[in-house]
Amino acid sequence: MIAVDWGSSSLRAFRLAADGKILERRQAALGILKCGSGFDAVLSRQIEGWDDRLVVLVGMIGSRQGWLEVPYVECPATISNVAAGMRKVDAPTLPGRIVWIVPGLLDGAGTRNSAEVLRGEETQLFGLMGRLDAQRHVVCLPGTHSKWAMVKDGCVESFTTAMTGELFELLCKHSLLGRLMTERGDTIDPSACEQGIVRAREPGGLLHHLFSVRTSGLLGTLEPRQLASYLSGLLIAHEVLDSACGEDLRGQLVHLVGSPALLEPYSFVLRKLGITPELHDEALLAAGAHQLTMQLGRLQTSAEARQS
Amino acid sequence: MIAVDWGSSSLRAFRLAADGKILERRQAALGILKCGSGFDAVLSRQIEGWDDRLVVLVGMIGSRQGWLEVPYVECPATISNVAAGMRKVDAPTLPGRIVWIVPGLLDGAGTRNSAEVLRGEETQLFGLMGRLDAQRHVVCLPGTHSKWAMVKDGCVESFTTAMTGELFELLCKHSLLGRLMTERGDTIDPSACEQGIVRAREPGGLLHHLFSVRTSGLLGTLEPRQLASYLSGLLIAHEVLDSACGEDLRGQLVHLVGSPALLEPYSFVLRKLGITPELHDEALLAAGAHQLTMQLGRLQTSAEARQS
Repeated sequence: MIAVDWGSSSLRAFRLAADGKILERRQAALGILKCGSGFDAVLSRQIEGWDDRLVVLVGMIGSRQGWLEVPYVECPATISNVAAGMRKVDAPTLPGRIVWIVPGLLDGAGTRNSAEVLRGEETQLFGLMGRLDAQRHVVCLPGTHSKWAMVKDGCVESFTTAMTGELFELLCKHSLLGRLMTERGDTIDPSACEQGIVRAREPGGLLHHLFSVRTSGLLGTLEPRQLASYLSGLLIAHEVLDSACGEDLRGQLVHLVGSPALLEPYSFVLRKLGITPELHDEALLAAGAHQLTMQLGRLQTSAEARQS
Repeated sequence: MIAVDWGSSSLRAFRLAADGKILERRQAALGILKCGSGFDAVLSRQIEGWDDRLVVLVGMIGSRQGWLEVPYVECPATISNVAAGMRKVDAPTLPGRIVWIVPGLLDGAGTRNSAEVLRGEETQLFGLMGRLDAQRHVVCLPGTHSKWAMVKDGCVESFTTAMTGELFELLCKHSLLGRLMTERGDTIDPSACEQGIVRAREPGGLLHHLFSVRTSGLLGTLEPRQLASYLSGLLIAHEVLDSACGEDLRGQLVHLVGSPALLEPYSFVLRKLGITPELHDEALLAAGAHQLTMQLGRLQTSAEARQS
């Protein structure tokens, strides 16, 4: 089978063996916002030469802006709930393929302004749960919008979102703070990141603390190349200390799922705050897509058995 | 005399009577970032026809990017401290004029990453103190960077900053939240603003709450035209509840100084949080510049008396 992580800004395709092992990978900067409505043509080109019949799409491709809007599945959500919510795409221009889209998750439906949504992370979470025991676990998936999920015994119980990644990018690119960042290193500056964590623990709140990026730059407490690391420590520490995940994490273990560039600052901050990070790479998505497909097959088999 | 509020994005000139009364006003979108280095030519044109000898400049014109960098005066700062820090500009191209620049304030000098700076608000604060009794008062000056000052008996004791205004603009213009704001009203939507205040009181922190602007838009809890008011209520309530000013304000009176467009949402949020706002317009700047100039005159007279 083929699993495709198709988000807003990029597409990652995995060719999987029958046991879920990754055989080949491809990647392209062809997110759903860059495809017009020609999703079938883009997909056809990306998986050319891979003759697998079954194609499973994950992520924003199932949103209103995607190929087919697939309704969210509500939390708590088991792998069976999510597999049952998968929708088949009508793809006549892709002969010999069967294309499915995985639904995203919705939590807090019916609340006034505190509902949560995600698309893509559900598949990573099911991939991760294949490696975990049946106990309750806290999972953080950093990104443009970080997701914090509580999972237990094959079920996504609940999740929350923090806009940390998007805010970091906005502040670096478009704000008065960014103007002082005339140099920027490739990796985290540990001293500056730690100073950001210290600042986050002081009173006054994030809106107040953000201005310290500017004064520390203006007054020379931090060098220009250190400011992004300071901001990163400040924001991530606020995300954790303000309990964006819904609870106090001190002393707990948190599973971190993401790209190495994001896992580095998150694991640094978690350790400094007395939380133990356990790192997992993004290939969990392939494992999750494989498990969802197996589950879909079981659901179809039992439905056919009931019909006959 | 002439008082000029010369900030990053605009210039406002006031012609004052001997008693400080405003006789005429002019305004131009000629902030210091739009003048190149021709500050004298811009000023000359803006005050043309006003034959007053004394010109007092206030704001970012005294920063490193301005006409002459005037060193900050440290808090606690009296009007006498600030007048003594005023610097005369060498302006041979402005015959018949004497041009002074008012210094900004610095608080928390020597702290690691919690120093504060301002330029321009000091003059508004001295203008305001001319109207207040000698008790301690809390003053909020909303703007790109809101300033919260504690003043007492003619002295600016301390102040803090919150990046609320800049963050609001960034999120509306450049973020995924802004994309949902397809319509935007001219005034605050009270219901949406109040829902933002309610959200700010819930646990999880600002980074988490920001995402609710998106979900409330996506799921239809709020209409597109309400989202900016919701965000405004959310941000200002966080600024106040997280004690960006350094203390708990419930039950207190807060003096608000700013433009009508900013006073509206701030006074709405303060009232909803049980804080009494007292509104003052930005013309306080002219009063403050007049008082600083009187004080400068007294300092010069006593210096001359000592010399002779």
